[in-house]
Amino acid sequence: MPAIISRARAPIAILTDFGYRDHYAGAMKGVIASIAPSAPLIDVTHGIPPQQIVAGAIALRESWRFFPRRTIFLAVVDPGVGTKRLPIGIATRAGARFVGPDNGLLWLAAEAAGVKSIIELTASRFRLADVSTTFHGRDVFAPAAAWLSTGVPIAALGRRLPAMTQLDLSAGLEERPNELRGIVVYVDGFGNLITNINRAHFERFAARFRAQSLSVTIKQHASIPVRKAYGDAGCGAPLAIFGSFGMLELAIRDGSAAERYAAGVGTPVRLRARI
Amino acid sequence: MPAIISRARAPIAILTDFGYRDHYAGAMKGVIASIAPSAPLIDVTHGIPPQQIVAGAIALRESWRFFPRRTIFLAVVDPGVGTKRLPIGIATRAGARFVGPDNGLLWLAAEAAGVKSIIELTASRFRLADVSTTFHGRDVFAPAAAWLSTGVPIAALGRRLPAMTQLDLSAGLEERPNELRGIVVYVDGFGNLITNINRAHFERFAARFRAQSLSVTIKQHASIPVRKAYGDAGCGAPLAIFGSFGMLELAIRDGSAAERYAAGVGTPVRLRARI
Amino acid sequence: MPAIISRARAPIAILTDFGYRDHYAGAMKGVIASIAPSAPLIDVTHGIPPQQIVAGAIALRESWRFFPRRTIFLAVVDPGVGTKRLPIGIATRAGARFVGPDNGLLWLAAEAAGVKSIIELTASRFRLADVSTTFHGRDVFAPAAAWLSTGVPIAALGRRLPAMTQLDLSAGLEERPNELRGIVVYVDGFGNLITNINRAHFERFAARFRAQSLSVTIKQHASIPVRKAYGDAGCGAPLAIFGSFGMLELAIRDGSAAERYAAGVGTPVRLRARI
Repeated sequence: MPAIISRARAPIAILTDFGYRDHYAGAMKGVIASIAPSAPLIDVTHGIPPQQIVAGAIALRESWRFFPRRTIFLAVVDPGVGTKRLPIGIATRAGARFVGPDNGLLWLAAEAAGVKSIIELTASRFRLADVSTTFHGRDVFAPAAAWLSTGVPIAALGRRLPAMTQLDLSAGLEERPNELRGIVVYVDGFGNLITNINRAHFERFAARFRAQSLSVTIKQHASIPVRKAYGDAGCGAPLAIFGSFGMLELAIRDGSAAERYAAGVGTPVRLRARI
Repeated sequence: MPAIISRARAPIAILTDFGYRDHYAGAMKGVIASIAPSAPLIDVTHGIPPQQIVAGAIALRESWRFFPRRTIFLAVVDPGVGTKRLPIGIATRAGARFVGPDNGLLWLAAEAAGVKSIIELTASRFRLADVSTTFHGRDVFAPAAAWLSTGVPIAALGRRLPAMTQLDLSAGLEERPNELRGIVVYVDGFGNLITNINRAHFERFAARFRAQSLSVTIKQHASIPVRKAYGDAGCGAPLAIFGSFGMLELAIRDGSAAERYAAGVGTPVRLRARI
Repeated sequence: MPAIISRARAPIAILTDFGYRDHYAGAMKGVIASIAPSAPLIDVTHGIPPQQIVAGAIALRESWRFFPRRTIFLAVVDPGVGTKRLPIGIATRAGARFVGPDNGLLWLAAEAAGVKSIIELTASRFRLADVSTTFHGRDVFAPAAAWLSTGVPIAALGRRLPAMTQLDLSAGLEERPNELRGIVVYVDGFGNLITNINRAHFERFAARFRAQSLSVTIKQHASIPVRKAYGDAGCGAPLAIFGSFGMLELAIRDGSAAERYAAGVGTPVRLRARI
């Protein structure tokens, strides 16, 4: 791929659980357009399931690296709005900036991008004049993202914090002699079940069974084969695959694995050698 | 907050009930991009419940003030398309312009922004060449908004009207000696129940009961306490709060009040002193 | 309408079945912003029903002509991702460019725009460095669309193909002496049932019954009258109308015809003279 040239202003990429019914995401975009009229606005998604921080964190981790280097990610999944959870901004070694609540939402992406500094968003001149207790996305986070894009340095937005809230997806992950156990951590809109088994886990385990093919068990449904492409399964057939998340996921060709197996976040899965 | 500088072209902010399934909103955006290629396009929402003019009017009232001063709002919730309801454009003292059907949809926002002039969109050269009877959003309203953004004065779009259709949200609002009655006028995507009781109504009523705390009754569920932040209620607990609408709303912390109380638009609520 | 002046860069208009829950559409937009930071991005819709190529093809056919002449349409409804279906780019006589899978999705629009050349997207330097087997929208199609918008000629994206996969909507269409038969080919988000009977079919048939009005039958529900505007039917009443698709569609004023008649894609309809 030829070198990517980024002459234009870095975009502000927005990810929330506000949904598409109300004007909430729209009001945030209005605030940004008022402060930084020439910043390109990109909706990553507003469809994160309400208040599911882990789902938002995974979606952010899976998308940030595809954006221009200096993109500002404005992420709001914020069940604790109005309580003591801190509003933060993060600068990273990769160049990306993140703005949102300090509740774990930003952790997976910020960790992957390399945290350089964490700022609590305390500077009142970079907030709206009236800050509600219910809508920090509009009143605190959107202005912070917009001012960043105009060139305000992140350190000006508040006081430096030594650490941020982390998120751990390894719960339920266990390597046993004859099986690799994991759990579903995300269900996408097609009903694909994304697990917390990544390629490194998988390959370490698979190395022991070189001669045998592996298959996945979920809720008594055994022998779901591991495939390279959705198209390698027949129509309506199940498969396990490393999808665009880089995690092992269970899918039904042209169907929904979440429905077929009545499975969701937390459902255990097991990887075994096929007998 | 530092002064907001708006060098860029005013955005066109779009709010409809077209949903996210079809290409209808997309076709409108194509029309705008054809006429005004450098006008920033911002989706406020396309998720207004189908043909619910009041829901659209409230969403518009709650969002317009967060946008740049000269924003053009293109709003389409239009059950009467193809009938005698007029297509209109509105200039306001606050600077915002509104374009859409004259069915009450634009009223709440236009009233708040201060109506300066109302124009019926009759000028055929500022419409598409073929105007369908079913899709004025694409054929009449989108072109009008786009031409406005290129600098065409609003008066050029048609003939001046003396008045527009208004919308009254005070039905069901009643101040009694011992209780303040209102109704639910909007249900948001989180299931929060927004009432027609605003802060002025509330404070006038509350002033009489200074020593006592107030609580809200809905459908026999009494004693929902009035709180400052969602986080002040325990997980799963109900609360009444002045949310981002500036109206009293009923919510469940991390849940849906609409589901819990099987309530919707029109459901009565009562505010009383706690005994 | 005054002449349309297009000084700005042609937009990239995106249509997918990725839905609004996940970050998939967002990741594609990030890729585009990285390669072509100043290309305007317009979401046509991401709500095409999952893997329904015909629905996507119709939505694209109905929207492309409303966009600026040189718009690049990035369309992804791709049940065969990772299999042998080819990734293609299309140049047209009308000016529009189309990028997506060669599975019929692009056919209706490309045919209407006049196919000039078809290119298989084989040039690896215009793809992402790592192409997954599951997400060509992000890894192959988005980069191709972005590079096109920077001025890369379409011929540079790969090797020329002699033909592309076509789509035929005339199945179920039949002209009989006393009735015109068709089927529902699309159901929109309002529940309107769009048939494959176009205006030419209709007028040829109607010419034989000049003195009589025509009506439509669906699933034993006879005598749905043909109207000019939704508003010509009473509230809750059914009507047949040439809607914004330019096809005969069945609708319920302020309601859903899909629900009322329990009808969907494939349901037969018959047009007859009213007795």
